[in-house]
Amino acid sequence: MSTGLTLSSQHPGTRASVGVGVLGATGYVGAELVRLLGTHPGAALRALGSRRHAESRWADAWPGIPEVDLVLDDDLDDPGAWLDRGVEVVFSALPHGAFASRAQRFLEAGLRVVDLSADFRLRSAEEYLGRYGILHPAPQLLRSAAYGLPEWWAGDLEGAGLVANPGCYATAVLLAALPALEAGWWSGGAIVVSALSGVSGAGRAPTLTTHFAECGGSAAPYKVGEDHPHLGEMRQAMSRVTGGSAGTVVFNPHLVPMARGILANVALPLRRAVDRAEAEALYRRRYEGARFVRVREGDALPETRHVRGSNRCDAAVRVVDGGRLLLVFAAIDNLVKGAAGQAIQNWNLMQGWPEDLGLPLAAWTCA
Amino acid sequence: MSTGLTLSSQHPGTRASVGVGVLGATGYVGAELVRLLGTHPGAALRALGSRRHAESRWADAWPGIPEVDLVLDDDLDDPGAWLDRGVEVVFSALPHGAFASRAQRFLEAGLRVVDLSADFRLRSAEEYLGRYGILHPAPQLLRSAAYGLPEWWAGDLEGAGLVANPGCYATAVLLAALPALEAGWWSGGAIVVSALSGVSGAGRAPTLTTHFAECGGSAAPYKVGEDHPHLGEMRQAMSRVTGGSAGTVVFNPHLVPMARGILANVALPLRRAVDRAEAEALYRRRYEGARFVRVREGDALPETRHVRGSNRCDAAVRVVDGGRLLLVFAAIDNLVKGAAGQAIQNWNLMQGWPEDLGLPLAAWTCA
Amino acid sequence: MSTGLTLSSQHPGTRASVGVGVLGATGYVGAELVRLLGTHPGAALRALGSRRHAESRWADAWPGIPEVDLVLDDDLDDPGAWLDRGVEVVFSALPHGAFASRAQRFLEAGLRVVDLSADFRLRSAEEYLGRYGILHPAPQLLRSAAYGLPEWWAGDLEGAGLVANPGCYATAVLLAALPALEAGWWSGGAIVVSALSGVSGAGRAPTLTTHFAECGGSAAPYKVGEDHPHLGEMRQAMSRVTGGSAGTVVFNPHLVPMARGILANVALPLRRAVDRAEAEALYRRRYEGARFVRVREGDALPETRHVRGSNRCDAAVRVVDGGRLLLVFAAIDNLVKGAAGQAIQNWNLMQGWPEDLGLPLAAWTCA
Amino acid sequence: MSTGLTLSSQHPGTRASVGVGVLGATGYVGAELVRLLGTHPGAALRALGSRRHAESRWADAWPGIPEVDLVLDDDLDDPGAWLDRGVEVVFSALPHGAFASRAQRFLEAGLRVVDLSADFRLRSAEEYLGRYGILHPAPQLLRSAAYGLPEWWAGDLEGAGLVANPGCYATAVLLAALPALEAGWWSGGAIVVSALSGVSGAGRAPTLTTHFAECGGSAAPYKVGEDHPHLGEMRQAMSRVTGGSAGTVVFNPHLVPMARGILANVALPLRRAVDRAEAEALYRRRYEGARFVRVREGDALPETRHVRGSNRCDAAVRVVDGGRLLLVFAAIDNLVKGAAGQAIQNWNLMQGWPEDLGLPLAAWTCA
Repeated sequence: MSTGLTLSSQHPGTRASVGVGVLGATGYVGAELVRLLGTHPGAALRALGSRRHAESRWADAWPGIPEVDLVLDDDLDDPGAWLDRGVEVVFSALPHGAFASRAQRFLEAGLRVVDLSADFRLRSAEEYLGRYGILHPAPQLLRSAAYGLPEWWAGDLEGAGLVANPGCYATAVLLAALPALEAGWWSGGAIVVSALSGVSGAGRAPTLTTHFAECGGSAAPYKVGEDHPHLGEMRQAMSRVTGGSAGTVVFNPHLVPMARGILANVALPLRRAVDRAEAEALYRRRYEGARFVRVREGDALPETRHVRGSNRCDAAVRVVDGGRLLLVFAAIDNLVKGAAGQAIQNWNLMQGWPEDLGLPLAAWTCA
Repeated sequence: MSTGLTLSSQHPGTRASVGVGVLGATGYVGAELVRLLGTHPGAALRALGSRRHAESRWADAWPGIPEVDLVLDDDLDDPGAWLDRGVEVVFSALPHGAFASRAQRFLEAGLRVVDLSADFRLRSAEEYLGRYGILHPAPQLLRSAAYGLPEWWAGDLEGAGLVANPGCYATAVLLAALPALEAGWWSGGAIVVSALSGVSGAGRAPTLTTHFAECGGSAAPYKVGEDHPHLGEMRQAMSRVTGGSAGTVVFNPHLVPMARGILANVALPLRRAVDRAEAEALYRRRYEGARFVRVREGDALPETRHVRGSNRCDAAVRVVDGGRLLLVFAAIDNLVKGAAGQAIQNWNLMQGWPEDLGLPLAAWTCA
Repeated sequence: MSTGLTLSSQHPGTRASVGVGVLGATGYVGAELVRLLGTHPGAALRALGSRRHAESRWADAWPGIPEVDLVLDDDLDDPGAWLDRGVEVVFSALPHGAFASRAQRFLEAGLRVVDLSADFRLRSAEEYLGRYGILHPAPQLLRSAAYGLPEWWAGDLEGAGLVANPGCYATAVLLAALPALEAGWWSGGAIVVSALSGVSGAGRAPTLTTHFAECGGSAAPYKVGEDHPHLGEMRQAMSRVTGGSAGTVVFNPHLVPMARGILANVALPLRRAVDRAEAEALYRRRYEGARFVRVREGDALPETRHVRGSNRCDAAVRVVDGGRLLLVFAAIDNLVKGAAGQAIQNWNLMQGWPEDLGLPLAAWTCA
Repeated sequence: MSTGLTLSSQHPGTRASVGVGVLGATGYVGAELVRLLGTHPGAALRALGSRRHAESRWADAWPGIPEVDLVLDDDLDDPGAWLDRGVEVVFSALPHGAFASRAQRFLEAGLRVVDLSADFRLRSAEEYLGRYGILHPAPQLLRSAAYGLPEWWAGDLEGAGLVANPGCYATAVLLAALPALEAGWWSGGAIVVSALSGVSGAGRAPTLTTHFAECGGSAAPYKVGEDHPHLGEMRQAMSRVTGGSAGTVVFNPHLVPMARGILANVALPLRRAVDRAEAEALYRRRYEGARFVRVREGDALPETRHVRGSNRCDAAVRVVDGGRLLLVFAAIDNLVKGAAGQAIQNWNLMQGWPEDLGLPLAAWTCA
């Protein structure tokens, strides 16, 4: 489209496309990667891995996306197999612990990697063991992996070989909390976060928790307080902007009966009173030019339907308690900005491309 | 039930039934009252009021409950009309501001009233004006109305003529917060509450917000921070147990895509560190013998499906931040314990009957 | 209920209660039986069986119904164990093939049985083998089992020892089709049925088909044409009223994203033209006095929300094609009139009690 | 993307874009047009009309699509206003009866029109009056309007000035029924159709029928038998391929609790017995090369989730009743192939472009 209106960022023309592969392609995050990479102007989908559906045709596992004409591979271990297929970049949507042991070999073979699991998000192998109960298979890579939250650390991405894509909850909470922390507004008191997630966030393996007649029409908290593993990467990123500790972060996630979406609210105590205008100005300034963050104005608050299908994060701020408590609300699509979309945004920056290349901006009208 | 109206085939004993009427009978709260009163062994449904459906047969407005064979009345103003029909107790499920102006006459005519609107919950006409934007039509009644949260103030109910039924959010939040406040544990710092509500909480009048293709599959915060009118009754009840102020209460409600249910989490800062066992013991002791509150044990957390269709409130406690922050979770069915069920529980106590008479304990298996 | 178990506060009269047990108690049908029997004035719940949750407390498997204070049993085989617990009537909600092999011993031990599986619905062991792929374990019982569709064959139930509870689809389709067939209106041409079912109809075992993020927001046909096993009992019952064959019955079921409910439409070709008034008169006359069937009037059509939670079947008739094609619509709650409620209706009649004893008539206001 | 894999059909490059406008832009169909035209490589969105939101910014009415930076216009009557804005093609998503009176002037002013209402679908003004109760405001245009079902009458579209976009139900039913009718297989007996629709099909104006707590969790038939207005265009199109009458078509639509999707099943009596292979071969041959129709193989049946967000129609055939009754199942997204997507497909052909230009092929992974 040659005029100004554009809802997505296809930058067509003569760009040479890069061969890409997806591991764990048949889960929700993997399939969302396939869907988005399939229309990405710089990507040529060349290989898909799935242990569960190995040897099946992709379209038998995902009949809604029949245009992808590939057979699902099982041989995850050998980077050579991916190189033979023309893959230059691997997106891994495997569960945590599954890819890390072969990451070193993939990198040595010259493949670049965007890992969507938790494996390379934490700097500390000890904390990884504590949070995930697994001895880290490749601790030597932890320092060199870039944490892919591009609104904050885009500079780490250009040319990176290994990018750790943030968790879905962490993405929403960090985009909400970091501006106030960076500005030095935080009092040091406990930060209290409540968050809601759609059911696709629990993955595609059938369980009683995600059975329609159980979770439909019901809301449930889980792993509340200080129990959720995403707290590790939240606190690490918070410390990075404060230059000190993240103090106490309390995180109360809930499962709610919708397929997609995360909605978080962050209550952050301040060292001095601010008013709403000042707070909004801080957030608006911080995200000026950020293609995928919108700070809502007036009475508007983030709703997940306004970001469903989009890579955008909607945010809004309020102040209460006489200006001493900041409330920040953030909404994302857990499978897009919370996973596959952000992975592509990170990859765009790794390639030196515009960060929005091939990514959807418009939310679905209804779903 | 000894009269003709019966929604099920319970064959009760010899209890004499009391004539009851419902105002605002065709909204969700009103219809839930009709449904529950229809099988209550002490109730004889004798009159139903509805301005919207006046002169219609009840079953045309609510085809799912055809056994109630009454015509909907429009003449809300005259207590005599209700007395003529044999009504002794009126449940009003009208919106706030609609019934208060005639309450005095109803009471003088000897009718007892359970009002499910916000009109008689606050002690102060000034605060009512501030929260609801209406000059209170009957300020003289505010002091004598009993606030019907029977797990806390059952003693106010026996023999009461006018009972104000608590708001749905207030019920969940107060059942969660009051034990710690009563015990003197609260530090005085800001209490931060997040809550989720099913869509029936927004009433039965069609709006874009509650249109299926808008709110389905989406979650949205609204009236966050210090804006929600239920904060008035929450703070008033909190002050009553602390004997002082309620300090700052921050309340962030959300609309989530389910028909019924409220799930609240309360983060309450403590003056001294406690451990989980101590906190659970406090809650278990406080609600010992309470027929409709269950404090969950072990890993269990309240889920709305476990109280859907039931008058029970499920609660659970956790402590974080080194024991200095108490988290309390509570789930109720907004139409039962949050409205019609609690109204009947209050009425049972007004009559001197067992508080659980005619009320459902079992949750629906799925819905 | 004279024993300790009580799910509500009905204060029944002096009826002596009968000891009942439920096999397969933790699936949706089993749990619905527990919920409904728990408030049935003639039932004393004395034993619950569940292989999956053996040795657990009931309330750990179904936290929403904590008042039932029983441990789940695994020893399904021995009728003596049930007798020892005071059980006189066993409701089996096990999958087909699981209970039939021990049915003979249960009956010989004097236990009465309502079986909610498909095992005793068909008269012919050959057809059972064809439809379900299992050699029938107790073919000698097939002739003596009563088919429990009480609006049609109530006379078979009084004093029956073994009752086969109809399938959920079969209940809706037969209540819709039988009056016209009995009246001799059918031309003999193909009867075409489409039906929709809520997801609880697929059971409680998690599968990809019933995973929230798969079936939510989507509709899907399955086992269409002549493939669905319920066709066997439908055709058998149709033949019983026609006195001849049932001819061709085409049955197209669909899974739709709701927890409960079945909605069927039956297109039945007629041997002579009728008008709508004549058709409605036939249906109204046939179901006159039937407590649980309502023939809707005027423009009203059955909707599943009007029977959700109720044991009622709503039906409506229309004629098209110049009066030569009859359309009948029927809605039931698949777990109530389609399973647990009808089982209790059958049991009431086995006992010689009113058929509606302890059964819900009012639909839930919203869910 | 230069390689073979492509999930959508952006054909970028040097194509000059055409100015487009949308009337009725803020309803679901209108907003879906805006969303899809916003990324269409041949479209420049230049004007949007909405009486309800006149003078508002687009993004205030649809906050999920903020990139469209246009003010909503109210002046629907004057083609000059659209020409001034550079509009060459108008998509009208107004309700039926609203645009037809000004269509003549728009066409005379040189604007091309794709009308998504029912106004130009029927050839006969008398039938229009009968079906819609409105005297047709522009009967002189009925003969020249092209009926835009491109898999059947693509030849009518190139160069057309006025295209009537088919109804959502009609699209699904016709794609399912026409191949058998064209082949002369139909016996002339009654064709019986059942169909399910998502709630967005009822439009965006709030009503009790589409209120979340009413239609959620429930299924309901409506306008059944011979009452639905889409029967007119269905029968007209059927007659066109048979060269004679369409005989009796019985159409039973249902509202089911999902936002999007139509699923139809057609039972079509045959003049001679066929087997499934023969029937599948007919359908596969008929739709060979059709970019947007897929005939499913083996056990697969159409499900709405496999076409959600896509312009594809999935279909499957079965034969029953000894080969004398053909069953055809079809699934579409009511807002895409059933409305906005097909309108763009029609427009592509009007322009002489590839029919799939700018249209989504991949279904959403979950929603």
